[in-house]
Amino acid sequence: MTIDKSDYLSVLENFPRQCREALELTKGMKISGKIGSIVICGMGGSAIGGDMLKSYMRDNEIPVVVNRDYNLPKFVNESTLVFVISYSGNTEETLSCYKEAVKKKATIWGITSGGKLEGLCKNIIKIPSGLQPRAATGYLFFPMLGLLYNTGIIDVKNAELNEFLDMIKDVEKFKSAGEELAKKMKEKLPIIYSSNLFEPVAYRIKTQFNENSKHPSYHHTFSEMNHNEILSVESMERSKFIVFMIRDEGDHPRIKKRMDICKDIFERNVDVEEIKTQGKYLLTRMFSAIYLGDFITYYLAINKRVDPAPVVVIEWLKKKLG
Amino acid sequence: MTIDKSDYLSVLENFPRQCREALELTKGMKISGKIGSIVICGMGGSAIGGDMLKSYMRDNEIPVVVNRDYNLPKFVNESTLVFVISYSGNTEETLSCYKEAVKKKATIWGITSGGKLEGLCKNIIKIPSGLQPRAATGYLFFPMLGLLYNTGIIDVKNAELNEFLDMIKDVEKFKSAGEELAKKMKEKLPIIYSSNLFEPVAYRIKTQFNENSKHPSYHHTFSEMNHNEILSVESMERSKFIVFMIRDEGDHPRIKKRMDICKDIFERNVDVEEIKTQGKYLLTRMFSAIYLGDFITYYLAINKRVDPAPVVVIEWLKKKLG
Repeated sequence: MTIDKSDYLSVLENFPRQCREALELTKGMKISGKIGSIVICGMGGSAIGGDMLKSYMRDNEIPVVVNRDYNLPKFVNESTLVFVISYSGNTEETLSCYKEAVKKKATIWGITSGGKLEGLCKNIIKIPSGLQPRAATGYLFFPMLGLLYNTGIIDVKNAELNEFLDMIKDVEKFKSAGEELAKKMKEKLPIIYSSNLFEPVAYRIKTQFNENSKHPSYHHTFSEMNHNEILSVESMERSKFIVFMIRDEGDHPRIKKRMDICKDIFERNVDVEEIKTQGKYLLTRMFSAIYLGDFITYYLAINKRVDPAPVVVIEWLKKKLG
Repeated sequence: MTIDKSDYLSVLENFPRQCREALELTKGMKISGKIGSIVICGMGGSAIGGDMLKSYMRDNEIPVVVNRDYNLPKFVNESTLVFVISYSGNTEETLSCYKEAVKKKATIWGITSGGKLEGLCKNIIKIPSGLQPRAATGYLFFPMLGLLYNTGIIDVKNAELNEFLDMIKDVEKFKSAGEELAKKMKEKLPIIYSSNLFEPVAYRIKTQFNENSKHPSYHHTFSEMNHNEILSVESMERSKFIVFMIRDEGDHPRIKKRMDICKDIFERNVDVEEIKTQGKYLLTRMFSAIYLGDFITYYLAINKRVDPAPVVVIEWLKKKLG
């Protein structure tokens, strides 16, 4: 059942093709009904696309909430669009939300590779099985984008899709940059920072350290961390911690200045690596940092001599849960 | 300008009185206008009361969003109640949101001890100055509760206020339990876990480690951490990390089971300390863990021989920002 290391690398390398395929999955599909709010239910690798959608819809008046829980927020009603996302189709938290959404008569769309969800949910985007959920971000994210575009809720320009597909195809560049950063960080504890808009990216990289590298990693955002977490620098040592900062041209000018100053503050005690996003459009900028993170965390696993693919502890936990 | 250590301890010890006073601040005050959603703007110690309010209103259909940013979410409109909370009254992110809220014709209520906000905002709850914002959680939280109760948005029972005030007054018990836990953890890196409902508590304790103890600390929630962060246990060492789990009687049965299993998983590599909430009502349960955390982090500072009160790095950062 375990995908071997070379297979897992080839899955990462095939990510550009996955995105191109994912963009085709919703052709001709449309959501019907009023959409006053959007709630995305999912856990772990199946939820991160929801965070990205929330960032993507930053200029939209429809509120977007990502729900990682057994229960839905109380405001969900008949005018809520609920995306129910579970790669396996058997995630118990997500199935529990699905049942609540049915009771509340929300408009429901599921994204899954199979499992119970496929049998339960009428509106399903079926995606290929056999991947680790965290390696299926393209399949789990783009169908939401496609459906919302087809329905006229969001505008997705051809120019941005082209920029994104053009950026992501340079796999070798991401691989070598990721390998380089993995070497530099050694086995230090990585703390990832970003603006609020790029929190999905910071959180994704943190979780990839956890899942691919079996390594502790934590994240926080600017400027909230200026009001508390920055003080922890006083007890951080260069040999133990490393800071990654996601830097984006679109960051608020004061956030840019805060990041510059905090870089100086951190560098008294720990090294700081900046991950600069690429591209003009948010889609490209988010995925450019995410894809780099996939390779940093993959190569850290290789350097630590752990297998990046299997998640033994999670499988064991699921078995114990029954 | 620096509050000395004994003063800071006496501020912590006076927290029960602060809460009693804070409950009186909104007597006879009421919010007018339609309330379709609630947004709470604040940063750091001024925002945590917003998180607690969101948890408190878990069964209410009005969506509550805590906004730690320069800009408001796009959905804010004339039927949004915006709480603008800044202990100093001069937090630039919060003042920026205030200006946006005015443009959007939202209903605005401010909570502050003075500064620019006091001069700008018509509806102000004025609270005493001279405290560290993180030591003013009672003043920053209860006025929201009072206003929403007076307006008929939420129901706050006398029984729950009485239970809370009765629980919180046993200061010596919290002090000695906090001192004990601080001794036990030595100078390890504390990771705090809770259910989603208790995330405000986990985050509060994490930030108190940062601010009081000048110590790194991070947090995450169940069950999301079961899908990624649990894997980091493979690289955690008993001499370096310690796990705190906030346990609550009201946790979902599956969350309870997940916490039990994860405790076992963690304990192979790191010690786990459980913080059990006290009381029947959510208010009591949240504050019982928060107040304990205040003392754990205070005593860790004392044990590390750092002054818990001043936040020199934050002051320096503010000066550099201009």
